[in-house]
This record gives sequence, structure tokens and C-alpha cells, in this order.
Amino acid sequence: MGRYTMRAYTLTDKFKSIFARRGRSIVLAYDHGIEHGPTDFLDNPDSAEPEYILKIARDAGFDGVVFQRGVAEKYYDGSVPLILKLNGKTSLYNGAPVSAPNCTVEEAVSLGASAVGFTIYAGSDYEWKQVEYLAQIKRDAVKFDMPLVVWSYPRGGKVDAKYNGNEHHPEVVAYAARIALELGADAMKIKYTGDPKTFAWAVRVAGKVPVLMSGGPKTKTDEEFLRQVEEVISVGALGVAVGRNVWQRKNAVEFGKLLGQMVYEGKKVAEILEPAVNSSP
Amino acid sequence: MGRYTMRAYTLTDKFKSIFARRGRSIVLAYDHGIEHGPTDFLDNPDSAEPEYILKIARDAGFDGVVFQRGVAEKYYDGSVPLILKLNGKTSLYNGAPVSAPNCTVEEAVSLGASAVGFTIYAGSDYEWKQVEYLAQIKRDAVKFDMPLVVWSYPRGGKVDAKYNGNEHHPEVVAYAARIALELGADAMKIKYTGDPKTFAWAVRVAGKVPVLMSGGPKTKTDEEFLRQVEEVISVGALGVAVGRNVWQRKNAVEFGKLLGQMVYEGKKVAEILEPAVNSSP
Amino acid sequence: MGRYTMRAYTLTDKFKSIFARRGRSIVLAYDHGIEHGPTDFLDNPDSAEPEYILKIARDAGFDGVVFQRGVAEKYYDGSVPLILKLNGKTSLYNGAPVSAPNCTVEEAVSLGASAVGFTIYAGSDYEWKQVEYLAQIKRDAVKFDMPLVVWSYPRGGKVDAKYNGNEHHPEVVAYAARIALELGADAMKIKYTGDPKTFAWAVRVAGKVPVLMSGGPKTKTDEEFLRQVEEVISVGALGVAVGRNVWQRKNAVEFGKLLGQMVYEGKKVAEILEPAVNSSP
Amino acid sequence: MGRYTMRAYTLTDKFKSIFARRGRSIVLAYDHGIEHGPTDFLDNPDSAEPEYILKIARDAGFDGVVFQRGVAEKYYDGSVPLILKLNGKTSLYNGAPVSAPNCTVEEAVSLGASAVGFTIYAGSDYEWKQVEYLAQIKRDAVKFDMPLVVWSYPRGGKVDAKYNGNEHHPEVVAYAARIALELGADAMKIKYTGDPKTFAWAVRVAGKVPVLMSGGPKTKTDEEFLRQVEEVISVGALGVAVGRNVWQRKNAVEFGKLLGQMVYEGKKVAEILEPAVNSSP
Amino acid sequence: MGRYTMRAYTLTDKFKSIFARRGRSIVLAYDHGIEHGPTDFLDNPDSAEPEYILKIARDAGFDGVVFQRGVAEKYYDGSVPLILKLNGKTSLYNGAPVSAPNCTVEEAVSLGASAVGFTIYAGSDYEWKQVEYLAQIKRDAVKFDMPLVVWSYPRGGKVDAKYNGNEHHPEVVAYAARIALELGADAMKIKYTGDPKTFAWAVRVAGKVPVLMSGGPKTKTDEEFLRQVEEVISVGALGVAVGRNVWQRKNAVEFGKLLGQMVYEGKKVAEILEPAVNSSP
Repeated sequence: MGRYTMRAYTLTDKFKSIFARRGRSIVLAYDHGIEHGPTDFLDNPDSAEPEYILKIARDAGFDGVVFQRGVAEKYYDGSVPLILKLNGKTSLYNGAPVSAPNCTVEEAVSLGASAVGFTIYAGSDYEWKQVEYLAQIKRDAVKFDMPLVVWSYPRGGKVDAKYNGNEHHPEVVAYAARIALELGADAMKIKYTGDPKTFAWAVRVAGKVPVLMSGGPKTKTDEEFLRQVEEVISVGALGVAVGRNVWQRKNAVEFGKLLGQMVYEGKKVAEILEPAVNSSP
Repeated sequence: MGRYTMRAYTLTDKFKSIFARRGRSIVLAYDHGIEHGPTDFLDNPDSAEPEYILKIARDAGFDGVVFQRGVAEKYYDGSVPLILKLNGKTSLYNGAPVSAPNCTVEEAVSLGASAVGFTIYAGSDYEWKQVEYLAQIKRDAVKFDMPLVVWSYPRGGKVDAKYNGNEHHPEVVAYAARIALELGADAMKIKYTGDPKTFAWAVRVAGKVPVLMSGGPKTKTDEEFLRQVEEVISVGALGVAVGRNVWQRKNAVEFGKLLGQMVYEGKKVAEILEPAVNSSP
Repeated sequence: MGRYTMRAYTLTDKFKSIFARRGRSIVLAYDHGIEHGPTDFLDNPDSAEPEYILKIARDAGFDGVVFQRGVAEKYYDGSVPLILKLNGKTSLYNGAPVSAPNCTVEEAVSLGASAVGFTIYAGSDYEWKQVEYLAQIKRDAVKFDMPLVVWSYPRGGKVDAKYNGNEHHPEVVAYAARIALELGADAMKIKYTGDPKTFAWAVRVAGKVPVLMSGGPKTKTDEEFLRQVEEVISVGALGVAVGRNVWQRKNAVEFGKLLGQMVYEGKKVAEILEPAVNSSP
Repeated sequence: MGRYTMRAYTLTDKFKSIFARRGRSIVLAYDHGIEHGPTDFLDNPDSAEPEYILKIARDAGFDGVVFQRGVAEKYYDGSVPLILKLNGKTSLYNGAPVSAPNCTVEEAVSLGASAVGFTIYAGSDYEWKQVEYLAQIKRDAVKFDMPLVVWSYPRGGKVDAKYNGNEHHPEVVAYAARIALELGADAMKIKYTGDPKTFAWAVRVAGKVPVLMSGGPKTKTDEEFLRQVEEVISVGALGVAVGRNVWQRKNAVEFGKLLGQMVYEGKKVAEILEPAVNSSP
Repeated sequence: MGRYTMRAYTLTDKFKSIFARRGRSIVLAYDHGIEHGPTDFLDNPDSAEPEYILKIARDAGFDGVVFQRGVAEKYYDGSVPLILKLNGKTSLYNGAPVSAPNCTVEEAVSLGASAVGFTIYAGSDYEWKQVEYLAQIKRDAVKFDMPLVVWSYPRGGKVDAKYNGNEHHPEVVAYAARIALELGADAMKIKYTGDPKTFAWAVRVAGKVPVLMSGGPKTKTDEEFLRQVEEVISVGALGVAVGRNVWQRKNAVEFGKLLGQMVYEGKKVAEILEPAVNSSP
């Protein structure tokens, strides 16, 4: 109806594969091999095998799995939608945060990806360089009609100077969400602020862009993580992108199914963990 | 009539959309989500929603709205002309001022833009890098016949060393205006010097390039901001590009209309704020 | 006659427009808006207007005028040959000297230029970056058959360490001249050493490449500047590229004509300033 | 069988030349001329001649030889498969570890290569730059169907800060292995941890990507090196890439044949060094 | 005869012009205008004129002359083969050694060059940048079938830290020679170690790539320089690339002819300087 020309944009189209079920999504993240190194696999050595991860994703019914290009090339079998993470840095790197692309969107297409992922560390002394990278990736994502999931993790710069490096600070997380919207994300992965009220604001300023909570390190108890999921879903997050909290657990498949009940069916922690009690009269 | 060949350049053509009404313009700036973060939306939480901004722009009769690429892609509906801001940096960034393009002119065309915007921080240790960016954007703007609005904000370098970082210093603002002319701006957004006499000089050295005053933070009273508008218009500015001073106000639409009376109709603050008194004998 | 293949190069062809009159040239420089800022226009505020500069150039018979791309685009009318300056940096910049191109040779052609200009600061920590820029510009200048005028201004590095930053030191100026020759200049603008003997050496090492003296800041008296012109012409300079010493003067046109008598007709200062006395018996 | 499209990937195809014999490989590394300088040739001056190296490779039955582009261009005769190493830095370089490509994959093809090699120093302040290089090389390797062998040598950054620069630390080596997998290596060369148990973990996290042990400096005795080979083969390494431990020895060909007995035939050190004793009843 | 495909490479073809006479070569270097500045011309001011250099080269029978692009464009007449030096830095530059290309191989072809030259400073903090430059130039040199002469001058980094900046240290020179081979030089120019025994090693590790001794500053006596030539030729150098030691001498042509007798005819210093004495019984 507008007076000026513009391109039609349909969010639904972009996410038909990874947001297929009621518009919610649970993604199994598995880029830890480059980001953290193999020490993340020590708790559950099977988790070092990408086949093991693919099996969890299939059996628990995840909407997608996140691989780097090398893992996708050698292991991806098409049994679960693939979100190809286009960049990654090692934890051995000590300089100003920056993570260069190791794969193009076009290559992601040929590797069978349904979406691409990209991390940006706003605040870093290399913020400008990362915007350059992201601009090219966004351009290609539009060209190849690939949804772009932005890992928005402000780091360095005033995150250190003003927030003591606290990447979970509500202002940092809300800013992260807005950056992803402004730069053209089709979905975003952001950290949890720790309470639903402040996270609600992050979800609001993310606007139309679906928010996935970043899982983070394995919590001490199952309940602790599930409660986070309940909280973020309750304030509008459309899902979670979770790695260690699934595949570092021995009960990975079962745990993944619990996540599904919460995210897709809207169940509460209380219903899930103590069904007998809850269903009792 | 010249003896040497040259390309014809018509300023009018470039600005048929955003300078349509008597050659004056009021632009609603909305790139604060990336530049300042969502804290700018706290005073008036509705301002976090781009639809709300578009409605203000339509209802108050703004000549254009300024969006980053992500916001344009997800929200722009063609109801108001779009000035697509091609770059932006976060306030979390602490290094030498620089803001990389996150969008090309060609992409701006496909997003429905009527003009493109670009910020340059002359004086920064990255001045040369920003000139590289701008050169490419200007080249594309000519190719795609898109007006280029330059946000000219000298910062860092001798702005700190010589002017104590005062970006409103008359010499800094006049220099900002001239830089925009010399580098090929088709319109410019510069800060207010604080008094009409020094701003007049900035407008003069800007030459044929239309000057829009940058709105800046919300003033304590409506009158304070309107007086700035009166002053800059009185010395030749062709309009204002204003964000917080509109959408951080509860009376955003009414305030926007007041700006229209001043910029398009040439009314004075006294006429607008106290019409009864002024019309009394 | 050579035994090996090579491309024919005719200096005359390259300079038919700006060295048309007896192979000498007086160029009116006007890139001060970006290089120094509008404070250079304060002595004679009319000098802020490019139309005023064009009128001086026409009325005094200059061989060319130097504009940045933005000024050319908005003001150039073809009435005087245009030397389009392809780069420029602001005096607010405080880092290692470097000036990035803001315009390509191809764009200069479309803006009606008869020649292109480029500044290089040899000695700077960014010397290599400037050589990269210049290499591309030279390549394009050959392709589009545009004469390339090099502003050769060694600065930083050992200019500071060895010559206390004195850019007029005879060794620095001679080096500047040679750099321009070696890197492919078709004409060069270098600073005056202060005495004709040392400048003669700079002219000699410049070889076949025409040397224009850079005008510099306005001298206290007309005679002081004219004497510099006499001296450099007497040792082989083919002209001057002068800005402030013309348009900061109220008698700009008359002064420009005096320059013409010296450069084109070979008159001496004594003949020009006191013709009655000189012609007396 | 997958539900999603993807490119077929067959490891066997990629390695038909250099992993031809029972899927095991012994590669003769010879990029020391650039990496260490000619001092590596002093023990056995003949080793300065690439023809001498090619002869050893042929006579001892190596699966491939590693050359830089210049050596390949001047000496490679096609008598042994060539792994063209695409980058290299000198040991005179003192900055943050980084090694730029001096050859493209396409050029490697024209030089007769059967595979290409590339070193990446994760952890370095230039990690991002090396990922940029590698991304381009991987892209070309896929395009030209060339196997990519990654020399994965974490260095600098937290390798210094956390591991005192110990590049053989089990965690560093395991991380190195995983980085190669994640970034798209088709085979990798990593350092030995010093014991088979920790090396087994590195081999495991390398997944499907064949692991070659990096030979390192010449050991004091033949047995010392052979024991390393026995250990890494026993835990799943598919071979070794060895230079100094072969061509710095006078008995290079014989030593190379011993390696073959261990790697291809699975013999133990005890069987090889004391065959009489072992075969005695 | 090889089992694997490869490109044929014939050294003879590459050097038919500049190594025409018995495979030996004497090259007249003349890039001092940019590398050292015009002070190098003060001893013999005629040496500032490229025509004077060309005349020496012709009259003394040099195999080639080394010019930068600007000098070639304005002066090269095809009377002597041209080695176009593609990069150069000024001695005013004080940063980490690096010299950017100011000309492409393709442009060198159009300027009539028979070969191209390139300097690389291994060890510098910008070593990687120079490898990037060289890689592109080598690629183009192959494409345009142009011989590539590498000026291999390790500088900075551990040349300072380990060798006190002594660029003539035998280990540094041998490393320089090997770097040139490894990176694809078709001929190299390296510094003299000061004694034939250590230079012999440098020549050996240079392998098939012809070695030219770099002339360096003018020696106190003719004999001193000629003795260096005798020594390097005696251990396998194929010639010299000499500038100041020729054109800073008044007897440049005669001196050049003496070099010819030594390099092409294998005469000794004793034969040349005191023929009467030597021929006496």
C-alpha cells in the first residue's frame, strides 16, 4: 500500500525449515570444538563425535543442529536441518574479540544448510571489521535466500569499561538484541540476563526478530536450566539454542525432549519434573 | 557554456522526494538502536517499535524516516520516504571513531530507500578508512542516482587535542559542514553550534549543499528545542533531522507538527507556543 | 629506435590543456576546505564560495583550478580547466600522515577534469598504503589518458627524526621531487626550499617532470611571494600552484595577472612592481 | 537418505594419491628452507638440494613430498606426489605468528600438486587473518578438488599465557586437531604430545580427518623417533609428515624404509631394530 | 617422465634477454632515486639524469638497467633491456620495513620491460604483507611470462634481535638466498657476506636460481669492488647488480667494461688492473 517502492519480506518464508513447529525452535549448538576446544567434550567423551550429536538431535526432535563448515562437510547427513555457523574463533586467541568467516553463504548452501549463523562482538576494537564481515554475509544471505541467525555477544570495549565485562548485564543483553535487529538478523541468539523481567525488555527491543536464548555452560541441576527456559519463553523468546546443557548430560535425548515439551507445548517446569504430583488431584 | 566537458548536476533532481515541500525538510532520525542502544527508548517504551515511529512520521507529516538496514527490511512499509543509514557503530565501542557500512547503496535501493545516509568522523585515527568507505558509497550513489546525506561529526584527533572534544565548537561545526561539501554530500546533518551567528558561517561554507541541524538529546523544554530550530532556519538551514526530541516526547505527533510550521511555513517560536498572545492586539 | 618494445609517451600530449601556453602553468589551488578547514576563508569570506574562485581563475587567466570531487560536482562549470584532487585529509587528523582517495580517475573524467591530483606523504608510517593508492590511480590515469599531478610532501618518519619536521629543507624537497618522478607523476607540486640554488637541484632531479612550486601561506607582502615565483622560474620551475596567496588577497585577480606576467612572459619582480622606475633611463 | 540437500563428500576420493597404500601415509616435509632457513641443511649439506630430497622420497617409497612453490617450479619432476605448501614464514619474523599464502590452489594445480598444505597458528593475534586466508584456500580446494592438509600449530596468545608456550601440551595438541577438523582440513599435521594416551584423545577429536604426526627436530637416536612413530600409529594416527628426522640423517633412505615398515605394515620398533633377536625362537 | 602432471619450466627461456651472454649478467641498478633519494647523485650530478645512465649501460655493454615505473615511462628508449622494479620505499620511512608495489607486471610489459624486480624484507613485522604482494606479482609474472628478480634483503625482526641488524651476516645472506628460491624468484639479488666461502653456501642454497651480488655503496678503490666481484663469481654467482659503484664513478663506462671482462670472460682482478705486470715473465 506504500507510496514508495520496497522489497517484500516475509519472515515466515525465511524460517520454514527451522521454525516449522508453531513458530518455536530448539537448536542444538555444536561449534564448541572451535570456540572452546575439546575440553568441552571431556564430561561426555561421546560428544566429541558429530554422529553422536546428530543422533541426539534426531532422537530428541531438535529443529536444527549448528556445525562449522568442516564438521558439516565430513559428517552432515541431512537427517536434521543444518544451521551452518560461518565464523568462529578459538579460546586461545587473546586479542580484541573478532571472528572471521571461514565459509561463505554460497558454500553453506552447497553443504546443505537451511540457515547460516554469524557471531558479532559489538564493543570490540574490531567492531568495524565484524560489521564489514556481516555486511557481506547479509548481502549473500539475501541473494541466496538463507535465514541469518546472529550470535550477538557484545564483548570488550565498554562492556569491560562500563559493565565489568558482564555479558549478562540487562543493558548489554538488550543492546545485543537491538544490534541484531538493526544489522539484519533473521533470528538471534543472545545470553540470558538472569531474570525474566529484564529479558522481556531485550525481547521487546528485538522487535520482529525471533529470539533464541543461548544455553551457556551446563547448569548444576536439570531444573536450573529448565527454569531459565521457562522464564525466557514466558516473556516471548521463541526458543533456545543449546549445546553443553544437552550433550554434556548423560540423559541428553530425554533432556532434549523435555525442552521440546516446554518450548513447543508451553509446559512448565513443575509439570515436567513432577508430573505425578502435578496430575494428582 | 563551458569550454570543457562535464556532467550535468541538478540538486533539485536528487531531492525530489525528501526535499519536496518548498525545498525544506524535516527528517525523523531513528538509528539510535544501534548508535546508543535501547536505553534511548526507556523514556517512551513505545519508541522501541519501528511501527510507532512510522506512525509518528506519517501523522506529523515528516519528509522522511531514517532506518538502519535491518529495521527497514523488517518494518518499512513505504508510507513515508526512507533514508537508509548505511553505517552505524555501537556506543559500546571504545576505539578510534569509525563506523563501517553494513549495507550497500544497491541494497538500499532494493529496500525502497529514497536517499542514503552515512556518518563520517573526521579527525579520527581512522579518518582514512572512513574516506575509503565514503568514496565507494558516493560512487554507488551516483550510479544509482541516490541522494547522499552525510552525518558529518568530527571526533577524536585534534577535536580532542585542540577543542577539548567539543563537537559543537563553531570551528568544528563549520569544518564539518565543509568536509561534507568537499566529499560529495547531497545534504548534510551537522550539530548546532549553540548560536545562530556561528551557525550561519557553517551554512555558508556548506555552499549549495542543504544543511539539516542534528537534533541531539531531548531538551528540557519544548521551547528550548524549538528555539534552536528557529535559529538555524533563520540563518539558512533547510531543516532538521531529529529523533529523540520527537519520539522521546509523549506529544510526538503534535511536536512534529510544530516543527513543520516552523520549517515549512517559517513561523517563529513565539507564534507557535503562544498564538493567543501573539494574535492579540 | 630501441631494440626492445615499449609504449610511446609524449609529455606534450598529456598536458595540452593545463600546460597549453608556452609550456608554463599557473594553477589556482582550492582544496583548502578539506585540508585546512574554513578558517582559511576568514580573511576574505567570499573565498568560501567556489563561484568566486572560478571567477578569479577566469578573469586572471589561470590555466586550471583545483577542486575536490564534491566542489566539482556542485560548482564546476567548465569555464576553466579542472584539476580534480583525488584525495585529501583534514587538519583535525592527528595520526600518521595519510590521505585516502575519495574519487577515482574515471569519476574525475565524468566530472569534466583535464587532470587529476594526488598527495603523497613519503616518510609517513603509512607510506606503503599511499603507494598502494597511488599505484591504482596511476594505472587508471594511464588507462583514461589523464595527466597525474603529484603533491609530493614528505612528512613524518625521518622528516621529523632527521630534519626536525622541516618540510622545506633542501634535501627533503629534492627527495620529494625525485619521488614524484619515480612514481609516475606527469607534473608535481613541491614546496619551496627558500633559495633558488637548492631549488635548482630539486628541479634537476625531477627530470622531465614539470615542477610547480606550492604557494603556501599568504606572505606578508605581495613582493615577498612574487620574489619566490621569480626565483623558482629562474631555475626551471614551469609554474606555480597557488591558493591562499591569491584568493586570500583582496586584489586576487590583479595579483593573478602579475603571476601570469612572470610565469608566461618571464618578467621580473622589479619590472612588475616598479615599472616606471625600471623603464626610466 | 537425508531429508535436506547436501553435497556428497568422499574422503577416499580426496586422498587417492597420497593415502593410496592401505590408507596410511608417510610424507617427506621439505619447507624448512623458508621456515627455518638453510641452517637446517648444515648437518647434511646435500639436503640443500631438492633433487636429493626427491631421490630419497623415491628410493624410500614416500607417499609425497612437501615443497614451497619456488622449489616445486624449479625442481619438481613428477616422480613422487607433490603436496604444495601454500604458505610459509621465516624464522626471522618476530611479530604475532602469521604466514601469508604465497601461492593459490589454482597455481598448485598447474605446478602438478596432488594436495595443498597450509599452516594456521590459532591463538595468534592474527588468528582472524589466518582464518581469512584459509577460508579462501578451502574454497579453492573444493573448487579444484584438491585435498587440503592443515598444519595446525597453535602459537602465541593463550598458548603462551596459559601453557607457557608449550606447543606439545596435550590440551594444545587436542585443540589443534579439532581446529583442523572444524575449519575443513582433509588431513592434518599436528605435534606429538609425548605420550600415546594423550595423543589418542587428539586423534579422537580429529574425527574423520586423518592425523599425521609432525616429525620435529632430529632425535638423538633412530630408536627415539621410531618409538614416537610406533606410539602415534598405535593410537590411530594414519602416518607421519617428517623432514629433518629423515634428510638430516646420513641413512635417510634406509630410515625412510623403516618408517614404511612401521606405518604400512604395522611393525614395532623391536621387530625392526633387532630383527634377529625378535625372530629368534 | 614423471608419474604426476606438472608444468614445464625452462630457466633458459625466462632469461633469454637478460642472461643472454653465456648465462652471466651485469645489471645496472638505478632505483636509488626512490630508495635513497637524490643525495646518491651528488658525487656525480650527471647521474641524476636517466639518459646518462642509459648511455653508460649501452656503452659499457650492461645486460639490463633497473628503473622504477616513472623513470621508465619518461626515459626508457629500448636501447638496453629493462628490469622494471615494481616496488620501492623511501629512506624517509621509519616504520617496519615494507615496500608496496607501485606498478603491476602487466604495466611493466607495456613499459617495455624484459624482467620485473621486487624487494622483500623478510623478518620485518610486515613480512606477511610483503608475501601477499609478492604472491600476486609472481602469479602475474607467470601469466605474462616475465622473469622475476627478487631483491632479498632480510631486515628488522630477528635480523636486529639476533644479528644486530647485520644484513651481511653469512646466515642472513644464506637465508635471503633460500627465501628467494622458495618464493619463486627467477633470479635474485643478495648482499655480499664479505668472504667467498660463506657466499658459496648462499649460492648453493639458492639452488637453480641465478645469484647476482648486490653492489652496495661505492668502495674506496676500484680494486676493492672488483675483488668482491672476483670472489662471488669464483663461487658461482652469475653476475652483479650494481649501481653506485658504477655511476658514482667518473670512469663509469670503463669500470663497467672491466666488470664485463670479469663476469663474462672470467678474468681476475690481477689480470685487469695490472695487465703489464701480470703478463710479464
